Amino acid sequence: MAPPVKADEKRRELVGRAADLFDRAGYHTTGVSELAQAVGIRKPTLYHYFSGKDEILFSIHEEFIDLLIERQEARPMLGAQDGLREVMADVLGLMDTHRGHVRVFFEHHRELSAADRETIRVKRDRYQSLVEDVIAHGIRDGELRDVDPRLATLAVFGMCNWAYQWYRADGPLSSRELAEVFFDLLFNGLRR
Amino acid sequence: MAPPVKADEKRRELVGRAADLFDRAGYHTTGVSELAQAVGIRKPTLYHYFSGKDEILFSIHEEFIDLLIERQEARPMLGAQDGLREVMADVLGLMDTHRGHVRVFFEHHRELSAADRETIRVKRDRYQSLVEDVIAHGIRDGELRDVDPRLATLAVFGMCNWAYQWYRADGPLSSRELAEVFFDLLFNGLRR
Repeated sequence: MAPPVKADEKRRELVGRAADLFDRAGYHTTGVSELAQAVGIRKPTLYHYFSGKDEILFSIHEEFIDLLIERQEARPMLGAQDGLREVMADVLGLMDTHRGHVRVFFEHHRELSAADRETIRVKRDRYQSLVEDVIAHGIRDGELRDVDPRLATLAVFGMCNWAYQWYRADGPLSSRELAEVFFDLLFNGLRR
Repeated sequence: MAPPVKADEKRRELVGRAADLFDRAGYHTTGVSELAQAVGIRKPTLYHYFSGKDEILFSIHEEFIDLLIERQEARPMLGAQDGLREVMADVLGLMDTHRGHVRVFFEHHRELSAADRETIRVKRDRYQSLVEDVIAHGIRDGELRDVDPRLATLAVFGMCNWAYQWYRADGPLSSRELAEVFFDLLFNGLRR
């Protein structure tokens, strides 16, 4: 007999399938019925795991930002160069493994309830400050120029996050290669 | 007697008001009725200018990308440094003057009809190739390092476009100042 599938594993699987479906079919046009059907379960079963579409939306947001925070916090202290390279690879890597989450996180923040939006905002700010710390350390250690850590962080996020608009996992560059190109551009600059 | 307001001016005004309203209240929750009401005209009058919400959505997209193309094409030939600085200032400047257009362009591309999406895609590709040309010229002239012009362009777009998520026109930095900071980061790099 196979071991019982744990409830949180099942939940995570459903969140992942929902994120993919929202990405493919559009968040606003996909209801709980379509979702249950796509996942191959009955609607009441879905309601066993989630109170509704709102909770699924929140779970997608939370999983995405938690992944970024966990990876950044789990990393041993690196220099600013290696640290930034890994930050870029984290964000771009999620476009391979969590494409649906990425789109939902970036495009459907405003559809969260006020309380959920606040929870996610706090986590997002926490992640941003982790990356700002990498840059601030690099400035103190003399590895980086004396730039504004917050604006430099927002530049890093912009370069990487924006890639969800055009990056394809099956394209010519892997997410790791793209992280390397973007890191080189930002670290070494365009100046000859 | 005041001169008659031209139809295309009225149209442009309505498109601008619609973009603002979609930005404030959300695209999916705003119908033609709310739009007419917010603009202070009757619904039939709105239908005199537009066949419906789809055409308004398309017009927002088209105005936005046309503005970027026009500004880039109207500019006298500059070196790569000044050229890139102006590209960045163009995109960021539209966040002061066309905030609603920006959000709609970045978040509601998929709601366009297939034909409209194609029209906009062609214009967007054209704008991208104009910016790639600035970088490619800079490489040939020896002003810039030998980077991939397409990926460098996508990095520029990422840094600037992403700012619509956090930049506020009434914040501490003007869009021109932010363009200067981002240009400096990308041109001179983070390396000390």
